Amino acid sequence: MKPSLVIDSDIVTANINKMAEKCKRLGLEWRPHFKTHQSKTIGRWFRTFGVSGITVSSIEMARFFAEDGWTDITIAFPVDCSRMIELEALSEITQLTMITSSLKALEQLSEAHFKQRPHLLIEVDPMNGRSGVDIEDTSALEDLVDRASSLKTVVYKGFYAHAGQTYKGRSAEDVLAIVAPVLRRLHTLKARFPGSVICFGDTPSCSLTDDIDIATQTSPGNLVFYDWIQTRIGSCTPADIGIAMKCTVIELFPKRNQFLIHGGAIHFSKDADVTEDGKPYYGVVAESKGNGWGNPLEGAFLSSISQEHGMVSCTKAYLETLNVGDEIFVLPIHSCLTADCMGGYIDLDGNQIDHFSSVRS
Amino acid sequence: MKPSLVIDSDIVTANINKMAEKCKRLGLEWRPHFKTHQSKTIGRWFRTFGVSGITVSSIEMARFFAEDGWTDITIAFPVDCSRMIELEALSEITQLTMITSSLKALEQLSEAHFKQRPHLLIEVDPMNGRSGVDIEDTSALEDLVDRASSLKTVVYKGFYAHAGQTYKGRSAEDVLAIVAPVLRRLHTLKARFPGSVICFGDTPSCSLTDDIDIATQTSPGNLVFYDWIQTRIGSCTPADIGIAMKCTVIELFPKRNQFLIHGGAIHFSKDADVTEDGKPYYGVVAESKGNGWGNPLEGAFLSSISQEHGMVSCTKAYLETLNVGDEIFVLPIHSCLTADCMGGYIDLDGNQIDHFSSVRS
Repeated sequence: MKPSLVIDSDIVTANINKMAEKCKRLGLEWRPHFKTHQSKTIGRWFRTFGVSGITVSSIEMARFFAEDGWTDITIAFPVDCSRMIELEALSEITQLTMITSSLKALEQLSEAHFKQRPHLLIEVDPMNGRSGVDIEDTSALEDLVDRASSLKTVVYKGFYAHAGQTYKGRSAEDVLAIVAPVLRRLHTLKARFPGSVICFGDTPSCSLTDDIDIATQTSPGNLVFYDWIQTRIGSCTPADIGIAMKCTVIELFPKRNQFLIHGGAIHFSKDADVTEDGKPYYGVVAESKGNGWGNPLEGAFLSSISQEHGMVSCTKAYLETLNVGDEIFVLPIHSCLTADCMGGYIDLDGNQIDHFSSVRS
Repeated sequence: MKPSLVIDSDIVTANINKMAEKCKRLGLEWRPHFKTHQSKTIGRWFRTFGVSGITVSSIEMARFFAEDGWTDITIAFPVDCSRMIELEALSEITQLTMITSSLKALEQLSEAHFKQRPHLLIEVDPMNGRSGVDIEDTSALEDLVDRASSLKTVVYKGFYAHAGQTYKGRSAEDVLAIVAPVLRRLHTLKARFPGSVICFGDTPSCSLTDDIDIATQTSPGNLVFYDWIQTRIGSCTPADIGIAMKCTVIELFPKRNQFLIHGGAIHFSKDADVTEDGKPYYGVVAESKGNGWGNPLEGAFLSSISQEHGMVSCTKAYLETLNVGDEIFVLPIHSCLTADCMGGYIDLDGNQIDHFSSVRS
């Protein structure tokens, strides 16, 4: 069979439930980032856990979910005012939240014609070095908040911050050490702008600390599936990973303890972790169990990929159990990109589950 | 605007013409690999240069092109006999060529029911370490050829070899040094199995040497577009790159000589080249010129990407020319994966061009 991305819905709903419970306990509004699963079907699973506001990464993804009845959507990518017509149209069917750190964007927003006034969060950069205004640049922040608050076309609400540097951690201790200075600065921000919303929290921090309760809202998304890199970061255990790629064994190479699977870069993406000796790898084989998968197999990993080819390096003992035509399960390095490449899922019973990327072009 | 992958059809047709002429001169049949462009529209451009046989990387891609009238298709991925029903159905509408290095696959093929008997190439591994039987394992090769020749369901034709190690070269000299021992072994193979077809030739070797004329057929595909990594390998110049991503400038960061574009891992893929100091980068900015692009800009490159965010590092001088909302062009590292991520193109006049990945799910 061709490669298929399989969902274990028990694991996925347990992951959703765990974060929903944590947010309730901490008094946080969870607005899960749907860019990980990008699925209307999976999106609906969140509703039963009390989720009503969501986060997406593009205007077209916002439309996709708005058309499935989501009426409260944050687009967590700096607003692109060259697409105002699309944003105005979206504001007719959903309550948008936009983010920006650009005075020019605020000027352009002041001339927009929205049906429902979008909420606006100023994006602050919490020492991540990606988008947003430096969280310590108080003067720039005040200018932005003042200008945003004066706009008639949008409603200033507060701040959005993404600390992507937590992904560099390789243990819970690492992540906590990385996030600690961010949390201190968020406390300062909160004290300086009382009453402002703070939206903060990525999958590593939200999985590993209660101190995210400095935030008002949080939007981690990856934890719906988790993935191999999250086990390496320390955010989860392999048993929490809710998706795996089912691939057919094509050829066996006993001399080099390797085998070829159908499953390559267009299925997994080229996102990699690195071995202890600095070599990239693209996934980890898990034992087959029932109609799904179980524990990761020691020393069986996707050591190279090209467009459709995947080469698994493994132990002699494991290789001897395999035959051409067998199907194996591979835990992806980065579930968001793997799901985006695949454009769809099946559940353990073989039912199809939708994904936005198969319809977005 | 959202990111769009733009084709300069003059460059693309010049690339096709150049390779078509070279193959004519060398007496080689060019069966271009369509996994790079995956487009019915672009596929048709090849017909005017005398191409009638093509190469693809999957059964579903073979069907896609067979349905557009291609009646002679090599699937250059080891045949997956668990999908015999699909292969049998395909054999009703096209002349298939299959590759394998598995005796078990040959056994399974012996029981298939094909409408048109597929051609069969034994895949040899020319010191690449991916798929195929070791090119120097004469005993295994003889067994495979004997068994393949005895089959009534398929027609044994010869050998298929892919020397992916040429992609490790970083100059024409490198590539020639890497391919030389492969060519010597192909000569030995040809002498041992006279009359057998040899299909050989990747984009670096086909771009850089006439000595590929040891082959009967050749199937390079990337050269339809080329890309940044091919300029680094030495296969082409930047002026030969036929596609570029058009991205909107979202935010400027003058303090760090960077700017944010809309364009990330789901657009470019995570395939990377590395800078001299070992840091990955994901594309190179080219100057805008007319409604397309011109030369690459010195020191302006995509230094980090996440799902939708792209961060460009550049010179102060270039940054000062930019405004939020401008559109820039980025040359991709690896055009095959970028095209697969995007699932479609536009030409310089804005006309849509199809891609298989937008319809394959």
